[in-house]
Amino acid sequence: MKYTIAVIPGDGIGPEVVDQAKKALDAVAEAYDHIFLYKEALLGACAIEKTGYPLPQETIDICRNSDAILYGAIGDPKYDNDPSARIRPEQGLLQLRKELDLYCNVRPVKAYDNLIHNSPLKREVIKGTDFLVYRELTGGIYFGKKEVSADGKMASDVSVYTVDEITRITHLAFKAAQKRKKKVTLVDESNVLETSRLWRKTVTEIAKEYPEITLEYLFVANATMQLITNPKQFDVILTENLFGDIISDEASVISGSKGLIASSSIGEENALFEPIHGSYFEAKGKDLANPLASILSAGMLLQHLGLNEEADAIERAVEKSLALGITTKDIKRKIQNATTTSKVGDFIADYITNQD
Amino acid sequence: MKYTIAVIPGDGIGPEVVDQAKKALDAVAEAYDHIFLYKEALLGACAIEKTGYPLPQETIDICRNSDAILYGAIGDPKYDNDPSARIRPEQGLLQLRKELDLYCNVRPVKAYDNLIHNSPLKREVIKGTDFLVYRELTGGIYFGKKEVSADGKMASDVSVYTVDEITRITHLAFKAAQKRKKKVTLVDESNVLETSRLWRKTVTEIAKEYPEITLEYLFVANATMQLITNPKQFDVILTENLFGDIISDEASVISGSKGLIASSSIGEENALFEPIHGSYFEAKGKDLANPLASILSAGMLLQHLGLNEEADAIERAVEKSLALGITTKDIKRKIQNATTTSKVGDFIADYITNQD
Ligand SMILES: [Mg+2]
Ligand SMILES: [Mg+2]
Repeated sequence: MKYTIAVIPGDGIGPEVVDQAKKALDAVAEAYDHIFLYKEALLGACAIEKTGYPLPQETIDICRNSDAILYGAIGDPKYDNDPSARIRPEQGLLQLRKELDLYCNVRPVKAYDNLIHNSPLKREVIKGTDFLVYRELTGGIYFGKKEVSADGKMASDVSVYTVDEITRITHLAFKAAQKRKKKVTLVDESNVLETSRLWRKTVTEIAKEYPEITLEYLFVANATMQLITNPKQFDVILTENLFGDIISDEASVISGSKGLIASSSIGEENALFEPIHGSYFEAKGKDLANPLASILSAGMLLQHLGLNEEADAIERAVEKSLALGITTKDIKRKIQNATTTSKVGDFIADYITNQD
Repeated sequence: MKYTIAVIPGDGIGPEVVDQAKKALDAVAEAYDHIFLYKEALLGACAIEKTGYPLPQETIDICRNSDAILYGAIGDPKYDNDPSARIRPEQGLLQLRKELDLYCNVRPVKAYDNLIHNSPLKREVIKGTDFLVYRELTGGIYFGKKEVSADGKMASDVSVYTVDEITRITHLAFKAAQKRKKKVTLVDESNVLETSRLWRKTVTEIAKEYPEITLEYLFVANATMQLITNPKQFDVILTENLFGDIISDEASVISGSKGLIASSSIGEENALFEPIHGSYFEAKGKDLANPLASILSAGMLLQHLGLNEEADAIERAVEKSLALGITTKDIKRKIQNATTTSKVGDFIADYITNQD
């Protein structure tokens, strides 16, 4: 099959980690007989530099016409250190998500055996952990009406959700669970919030269409406890925007492999795949950044295209590189043989090509 | 000095754990020459049984006229299993908090050396952890306007905060930090929420009155990560109602001693002290419930009355009981000699009386 992939290297270490992800994709293309047509586009600080805008129209067009978007990293310390800067790199990504209506954020959390020792949690608590967080990304309190009284003595924020907003992400979460351990955990605060009660009612109703999936419910505070005390219980966590921000960040540190976390932002027409790490400017061009999160983003991208076997090949290659310690120096292992960004990419591509 | 203490044993194991707390208070009274005048009052399921109301007027009066309120536990499975019950034990506690305007919830989180092995976190992560969570209890999204559209397709919740609400709890948090490690961490989401920006502005302003206190800021998602990766950094965490619900629950499990967590709910005129555990009906009357959280509540009560030395005596006695393993059987220790509720209370009282 032939697929058009919008490639946005972005800022800092973005270009070099995306290059490794492309190596993995090229190896997949050859091994499984696909064609990946890459269309490169600008976003973030590099786009401001070249065009004056963090999100040029051409980038939007390329993304719209793609089967999937592979994205590196965003941000430049030059803007962070200038609070008066009116145009900021990050605006580009937020605007792109909005343009493409990417309403569903997915983050996998997985305890890799060879990295468990990096977790702040005990081995027996974390071992075997493997779940996805589905976070609604376009509604809730972040986007509701915000007010400050005239005298500045009172402020308010409104959280709003509609059945339609809840419905579309719920189907995605249940479909993901179908291919996994067949369990969805809805995280809400339905004991007090009307929006949470609407979530619970809507999700409970939709669950009837998926009789093979077990639906559980957790209040958000309890969920933050369960993530620490028993993370293995989860398969797919489904939640609204603010709770998802909290849960997915908390979850990102429990496995001890934060540097390996990929994510996707999915809409009806488009989907974007990126590592959760930043642009790590200090490492730019030094061939020492960890490319595994970017490579795993490419794996999520393949899964999104329905290429499950191909996605598994990437996942297995990453596990092998961790097992053999063919990793960059940020991954602390007892036996340390740190290698470079590009050599990790070469190993992954090679393993995909020659796997038995 | 003479103090009037409203004692509300409540439901389930409440009466027996409160009895042990009273033993500790009696020992303190004798050792430090105070008089504690106990006024017993009804609240919860036992109040419904005897008066038809979960919060009789007499209880409100006793509490109002007290220097502090010592409270056991609430709830009876009989009501939990009957979703149609219109009068519920828990309503009594919520109503009491409202009547007395108890706007500030405090939860101490402390890693006791002898219990660290119960934590899901690694020893080196948790050892030395000792902080307080100050949670605003009467404002925010729990109490804002809630709406559902006529067709049931849309729901909303409003979060509101005023400068006055933020100010009163902020002073309590900074005063607590003055007696401790002199650091306050404000947890908010000021990158997106107006209410959070009002919190940040107000707290930053008040901080100027406390030049010896270091004020730090964390976004709520980052706070949930920091609690796991580096809990030792905290001294006093200050936050709004919803974030406080999340943070204080997450914090309660990291130390591995959830069964030992006391809490207070403080207002301008009154203050209530209680364990965070429930009424644990199955154990009622069996002399096996862990009384340490209730005893530590009495310690917090003494501190609130300004009796710091006396509060320390209770804290030391609890640490000694843990070190010697004179504890109930819920506390898993390698060398196990579980004893009864009342014998733990006897030991604590005895240790306070005979301490050297
Ligand atoms: Mg809650
Ligand atoms: Mg956030």
